Amino acid sequence: MAAVAVATRWWLLLVLSAAELGVARALQPPNILLLLMDDMGWGDLGVYGEPSRETPNLDRMAVEGMLFPNFYTANPLCSPSRAALLTGRLPIRSGFYTTNGHARNAYTPQEIVGGIPDSELLLPALLKGAGYASKIVGKWHLGHRPQFHPLKHGFDEWFGSPNCHFGPYDNKARPNIPVYRDQEMVGRFYEEFPINLKTGEANLTQIYLQEALEFIQRQQAAHRPFFLYWAVDATHAPIYASKPFLGTSQRGRYGDAIRELDDSVGRILRLLRDLSIAENTFVFFTSDNGAALISAPRQGGSNGPFLCGKQTTFEGGMREPAIAWWPGHIPAGQVSHQLGSIMDLFTTSLSLAGLEPPRDRAIDGLDLLPAMLQGRLTDRPIFYYRGNTLMAVTLGQYKAHFWTWTNSWEEFKQGIDFCPGQNVSGVTTHSQEEHTKLPLIFHLGRDPGERFPLSVASIEYLDALRRITPVVQQHQEALVPGQPQLNVCNRAVMLLWTSA
Amino acid sequence: MAAVAVATRWWLLLVLSAAELGVARALQPPNILLLLMDDMGWGDLGVYGEPSRETPNLDRMAVEGMLFPNFYTANPLCSPSRAALLTGRLPIRSGFYTTNGHARNAYTPQEIVGGIPDSELLLPALLKGAGYASKIVGKWHLGHRPQFHPLKHGFDEWFGSPNCHFGPYDNKARPNIPVYRDQEMVGRFYEEFPINLKTGEANLTQIYLQEALEFIQRQQAAHRPFFLYWAVDATHAPIYASKPFLGTSQRGRYGDAIRELDDSVGRILRLLRDLSIAENTFVFFTSDNGAALISAPRQGGSNGPFLCGKQTTFEGGMREPAIAWWPGHIPAGQVSHQLGSIMDLFTTSLSLAGLEPPRDRAIDGLDLLPAMLQGRLTDRPIFYYRGNTLMAVTLGQYKAHFWTWTNSWEEFKQGIDFCPGQNVSGVTTHSQEEHTKLPLIFHLGRDPGERFPLSVASIEYLDALRRITPVVQQHQEALVPGQPQLNVCNRAVMLLWTSA
Repeated sequence: MAAVAVATRWWLLLVLSAAELGVARALQPPNILLLLMDDMGWGDLGVYGEPSRETPNLDRMAVEGMLFPNFYTANPLCSPSRAALLTGRLPIRSGFYTTNGHARNAYTPQEIVGGIPDSELLLPALLKGAGYASKIVGKWHLGHRPQFHPLKHGFDEWFGSPNCHFGPYDNKARPNIPVYRDQEMVGRFYEEFPINLKTGEANLTQIYLQEALEFIQRQQAAHRPFFLYWAVDATHAPIYASKPFLGTSQRGRYGDAIRELDDSVGRILRLLRDLSIAENTFVFFTSDNGAALISAPRQGGSNGPFLCGKQTTFEGGMREPAIAWWPGHIPAGQVSHQLGSIMDLFTTSLSLAGLEPPRDRAIDGLDLLPAMLQGRLTDRPIFYYRGNTLMAVTLGQYKAHFWTWTNSWEEFKQGIDFCPGQNVSGVTTHSQEEHTKLPLIFHLGRDPGERFPLSVASIEYLDALRRITPVVQQHQEALVPGQPQLNVCNRAVMLLWTSA
Repeated sequence: MAAVAVATRWWLLLVLSAAELGVARALQPPNILLLLMDDMGWGDLGVYGEPSRETPNLDRMAVEGMLFPNFYTANPLCSPSRAALLTGRLPIRSGFYTTNGHARNAYTPQEIVGGIPDSELLLPALLKGAGYASKIVGKWHLGHRPQFHPLKHGFDEWFGSPNCHFGPYDNKARPNIPVYRDQEMVGRFYEEFPINLKTGEANLTQIYLQEALEFIQRQQAAHRPFFLYWAVDATHAPIYASKPFLGTSQRGRYGDAIRELDDSVGRILRLLRDLSIAENTFVFFTSDNGAALISAPRQGGSNGPFLCGKQTTFEGGMREPAIAWWPGHIPAGQVSHQLGSIMDLFTTSLSLAGLEPPRDRAIDGLDLLPAMLQGRLTDRPIFYYRGNTLMAVTLGQYKAHFWTWTNSWEEFKQGIDFCPGQNVSGVTTHSQEEHTKLPLIFHLGRDPGERFPLSVASIEYLDALRRITPVVQQHQEALVPGQPQLNVCNRAVMLLWTSA
């Protein structure tokens, strides 16, 4: 691991505030707890308008913390967005994309040999430099071959699985996804870790919760700052919940899973308070991509007023629920209109630890502490990629689409629909439509649902284009794509490593 | 006015609690303040997930009061829903519909001679029986001929207009809509009460606010219980706001209007606190119908995750923002899943005043006090009418559509779109589709956006239908439609009364 950043800022602050605090705690940078949901949509939380309002703990977290209505993931799919969170870099830089097709989405199912390159610097590895103990609970999704193992990329502990828990798998040709504790495989989904596909019953969220609580308690007892990455997956199809939550939601099984996750978040925050470390623990809640409307309504969530969902670069695919919580530091009950990104969690976490982001590479994440602590807003673009194709960019209130696409006519005719019930003529296209010369531009304040493109003849359009063009040009000129990691390999290769 | 109800319950309560309170105030039933918005959508408030979150006062009102996510108007159009609020009866009963066409929406523009019949008992008239002083500020919309005047139907005071402030009007053949103070016409929209159609500037909301504040102060000084019906119209196209609010919203002019209304609600609630009458004033905020998506994005709002808007009987047309506020009585920060209706404001207001609803006629409104004060839920249907056609019904989580229709192909082809960007095959139909034998049924918990009809072969469908059928049958068998008031007359008749 090269270019380890130096701890500076935090210790400086401590000198100033040590007098007010117990020394043991004062010398410790804040714990960092990232709660990452799987396929949970912007519209799935009560605080974001879900009509059943079944997320009292998350809603309270927002009341006690800061809500970000304009927070984005870095890709409308799991693997790349998780790579972006842990590297602070767009997936196009870290290699989390495919060259198998133009604007093609890709992730790491068993059929892919790639994963997180050794050259990437991951957040847990960097945080080690400031003395953090780290753990990932849940889904990794950054590669499943041995060299990509989380413990080889900075995590001290792991309980979870390398990939999604969906199939189709059987025990012969395609084994179920393994579940690990640290280096050891402790079982497999559906076998040792059962998910009843018919009833949706599984106690995995409870296991993940216990893993989190135990880790927090242990680090607190050891007076060690911790980084916990709680990457649960109950809201990814097939949806599951444990028995006490099944059948309790107005929203069906998907809502049961949400309720269990909400309850778990409540328990985690309560433990932080009970251990008196809430004021020394930064918590951020978000999701990896928009709700998977292909699975709605029984296995997919809600993107609220936004267009389409997972897999797309419309707002429904990439705008995420986001809540920051750090009692005594982040003022309660605030809303920040900062355009935020999942990659900011990388830079912000480093900043919390008193570390600088690596200087030998492009980092896309912003430090959100000025937004959180002083209410400052920073102008910055949000880039929307599918594979290696820049589909769209948002700058201020304006979003420009350079390419529009949902999915192919072939898929669509088979009933695979990323935008059920939605159809914006010339926008939700089923062929890849190029608009690089004259992008489709929307004003997201007036039209968050991307239904009314600005007239290309309007002054407003020209003004927006004039501001967007150089930002995109600069981005593209400076961009050095990483080696693509997510190209699909053939089944023979897959069998090679699954038997390894 | 026949069948005036008797004040009983309130006084009984007072005997029990008089010891704890100053006698002068204790003898007074609570003031009633209904804040009715015009074409404001469910999704227009921060607390309901509007991404710009520009309604801090309404969001605070919800935190201090009770939010109703499942609250409905009685018709997707202004006049009938306002008649329903003030009579506690479905518009089909009071005559607020037309027989000019099947499932045809109608309201009271100048071309209509009808209005609220003398036989209808209106809320302000009934509240007089418990000593209330009453005022309507803003839009009446229950008829503009002399016999329909608000002061002839129980209101003591009026500042506002009989109809919408839209045109097209000119000063010759079709005069602008008049603005009244009590019996006297004090001017006309665009003339004495200017709205700049280009800039959107108008100070009407400020005038309406002052009218409200002054009335509240005056009644408080006189120790008289009051009923104030604040029926503002800034969010009805053409949208307007006063100068200090213009250009302040992220949402354009529509957002400016929302901000001004939100600010006004904040000022009204603050006055109640300042006068120390907050605990003796019941306040309810809602809207007359869903956001007018035909006018979006510049002149229309948001219905959040719901389907379509004003004019339709989909959720976007009839589910409304709704907040109840009564400090010290309604517990703070609660969400009620009671299916509520604008007609409940009639019955609830009577209950607050210690009055019984009239017994000589069908009343559709429920008393919501058990829901508000004790958290009790009552099973009840919500009926969705267009004109005299029962389009749909909701019972529990299930909504059955007997007819589907947005608007005609002819209108649609001219660009009049009630569901821009939305298209649910077989649901958002442009011809009137009958499903009376086998209704389309949706589960609104799993599928609030009405995108996935239940399979008619499913047990769930059959169960839902079995429960819905007798409720509809009973409703239809007992229904006695009123004399239709909203049939369109010819222009000659119109000229007769506009010159009167």
